[in-house]
Amino acid sequence: MSPEIKKITKENAVKIAVETLRALREKSPLVLNFTNSVVQPITANLLLAAGAAPAMLCDGSEARDLINACANALLINVGTLSKTQAEAMECAIKAASEKFVPWILDPVAVGGLEFRTKFVRKLLASGKPPALIRGNASEILATAGYDATPRGPESTSSSESAVEAGIQLAKALGNAVLITGEIDFVCDGNGKVAVLGNGHAIMTKVTGIGCAMGALSAACVAVSKNAFEGGVASALIMGISGEIAAERSRGSGTFAAEILDALCNLSEEDIRSRARVLE
Amino acid sequence: MSPEIKKITKENAVKIAVETLRALREKSPLVLNFTNSVVQPITANLLLAAGAAPAMLCDGSEARDLINACANALLINVGTLSKTQAEAMECAIKAASEKFVPWILDPVAVGGLEFRTKFVRKLLASGKPPALIRGNASEILATAGYDATPRGPESTSSSESAVEAGIQLAKALGNAVLITGEIDFVCDGNGKVAVLGNGHAIMTKVTGIGCAMGALSAACVAVSKNAFEGGVASALIMGISGEIAAERSRGSGTFAAEILDALCNLSEEDIRSRARVLE
Amino acid sequence: MSPEIKKITKENAVKIAVETLRALREKSPLVLNFTNSVVQPITANLLLAAGAAPAMLCDGSEARDLINACANALLINVGTLSKTQAEAMECAIKAASEKFVPWILDPVAVGGLEFRTKFVRKLLASGKPPALIRGNASEILATAGYDATPRGPESTSSSESAVEAGIQLAKALGNAVLITGEIDFVCDGNGKVAVLGNGHAIMTKVTGIGCAMGALSAACVAVSKNAFEGGVASALIMGISGEIAAERSRGSGTFAAEILDALCNLSEEDIRSRARVLE
Repeated sequence: MSPEIKKITKENAVKIAVETLRALREKSPLVLNFTNSVVQPITANLLLAAGAAPAMLCDGSEARDLINACANALLINVGTLSKTQAEAMECAIKAASEKFVPWILDPVAVGGLEFRTKFVRKLLASGKPPALIRGNASEILATAGYDATPRGPESTSSSESAVEAGIQLAKALGNAVLITGEIDFVCDGNGKVAVLGNGHAIMTKVTGIGCAMGALSAACVAVSKNAFEGGVASALIMGISGEIAAERSRGSGTFAAEILDALCNLSEEDIRSRARVLE
Repeated sequence: MSPEIKKITKENAVKIAVETLRALREKSPLVLNFTNSVVQPITANLLLAAGAAPAMLCDGSEARDLINACANALLINVGTLSKTQAEAMECAIKAASEKFVPWILDPVAVGGLEFRTKFVRKLLASGKPPALIRGNASEILATAGYDATPRGPESTSSSESAVEAGIQLAKALGNAVLITGEIDFVCDGNGKVAVLGNGHAIMTKVTGIGCAMGALSAACVAVSKNAFEGGVASALIMGISGEIAAERSRGSGTFAAEILDALCNLSEEDIRSRARVLE
Repeated sequence: MSPEIKKITKENAVKIAVETLRALREKSPLVLNFTNSVVQPITANLLLAAGAAPAMLCDGSEARDLINACANALLINVGTLSKTQAEAMECAIKAASEKFVPWILDPVAVGGLEFRTKFVRKLLASGKPPALIRGNASEILATAGYDATPRGPESTSSSESAVEAGIQLAKALGNAVLITGEIDFVCDGNGKVAVLGNGHAIMTKVTGIGCAMGALSAACVAVSKNAFEGGVASALIMGISGEIAAERSRGSGTFAAEILDALCNLSEEDIRSRARVLE
């Protein structure tokens, strides 16, 4: 990585995650999710397990109503984008921007698929940028304008390969970028980077773990000092819960149940003792 | 509660639940569900675990075909209402009313969100009332025309606060109303009320438990003497299954699996020994 | 069964299943699923547990992009067909046919519901036949043009009753047909039939097990010598995983988790020792 990068310390990252977990449980932020049709149950269940409150709806005018009334963050995940959903998303983003409700972008499989790629580029050019973008390496590279050919939701690049692109994106948009993979990276636009090593390979064998982490990052952003800290907290909380669940399960089916249990029961001590932060 | 209210006895409530459970397993009623996109898997799985048969489809003409052929009850849940779905729902309700197939309304988050609130009011004014309405306190208050601001699917009022509204609604529509919460209340239009205390707090941490209970109440109405008894049976069966599952699980993930197991294996003795009916 | 039927041997069926399982894990075929809204999570999770990679999307142009780029098989499941989805499916089938990507048809509840029945007949008359059709007895009978009145996704006929219809269908279309039920039958158009007896009754108590098996058969077809072998492999792999899971679970909730675990951990020895092939 380039010399101007300032990695955050383990102490700092742990402090952020501990405080964010506490805030999730105390404030129960309401996250409005426009997400893909495959991952809706796991997304809602993960938010509930974290202490947050999920909302999902279809209609653009209802999104506006809910944002005006009480939503604390908005997730936009383009995994099963349709023309109708794209319109409702734009309506929701407009309302969120007007109410200063942060929105989070999950650019699932952006790159190879033209319809969603154009839609995401349009959103990013609209002057109402997301507070955080969460993607795997291919998706971040493609979102930043590099060539990348994702194979569905799977990344074909290592997360480190997208760090430069993530930093550029964060600089251009004035926001934060969370690149997930074996190692998770969180970048802001000022050269600050968190390098987080928790997680387990079986997390890639349950559909929606990455997408649900996007929703968790939205909840974390809603209760954190800034989007960078929200990204750091969500990566640590998710990675550590995943490790605990992997120890208690024998395959992807029991793992999917155990990661929710682990998150329900996650203690500050779990975060302190298990966090792997590469300084 | 007002003096003219007649609470049903524990003996009576248990008898209703035991007979309904037996009927669910013997008759396997087919429930056609128009429900929100988040809760479709848990809804179908809960109906199967109860002995009922779930059907879900999108198209209005197919709904009419299925109702004409073999559906025993229709669930209308407006949690992720869209214009297209609203049209299909109206088509399904028309067919159900013509065939005397009972339909059940779950007015998810009605109150704060204008599109669904208008739609539900239109349905209730159409002269083809649902046999049963299932909602939390905010939803029942809003459906009855009171001010209430639900926060997504979560209720901000205690279930008792909506009993008067539920009774008014049941009187006006000639049907039954099931108000779910820490205590569940079932009202009919003649002052009969069941006050049911089973359940566990973790049930609010799994997405779709309330919505799936709406579907279970539809199955129960299909095999019960009347909608009031269907509501009583579904609240007891669900609450007791939830308690058993809570004893066997360590968090919301294992709970979601255990409640299905508990319902599969629920015995009449479980109902008799665990029912909490406030006389 | 008629005299010209040639049943495959246990030895042959086991060999096919063992080689296909190995190929699934080595090649990780990408299956693009247009499936019903209820079963998307279990479909994606089952494919992942088998070693395959799932993709789901809504838009027809994106389907074309993904098929042109990297999809290895296409699943078309009409369980919650809408006009919009039907258009996207036709677009996907056209792209798949042009790229010689095999497509698999799951004619859920075809027969009694006119809209999907006409759509499936149109697809089968288009000159671009599916490599494999997967259905229960009612669905195969109806797809082949016989009278059959399915009750939602449940079959009212025994799977054996549809074998003649399956053979006719396979002959007419030059493809393979997988009839699932207590006994699974796989037919090709040349009189070859596999009769496979694995599985467990609880598999009918989890929503989407049959539909997910359709998706698994698509993954198997992608890595098999031909569609008949893909059908044989998917029926054995699914049936044996289901048996192992049934031994480890106490109801439909834990079963749904255990079948994914069983598939993750399925060994070639499990297939050899447990396969029930009726010669």
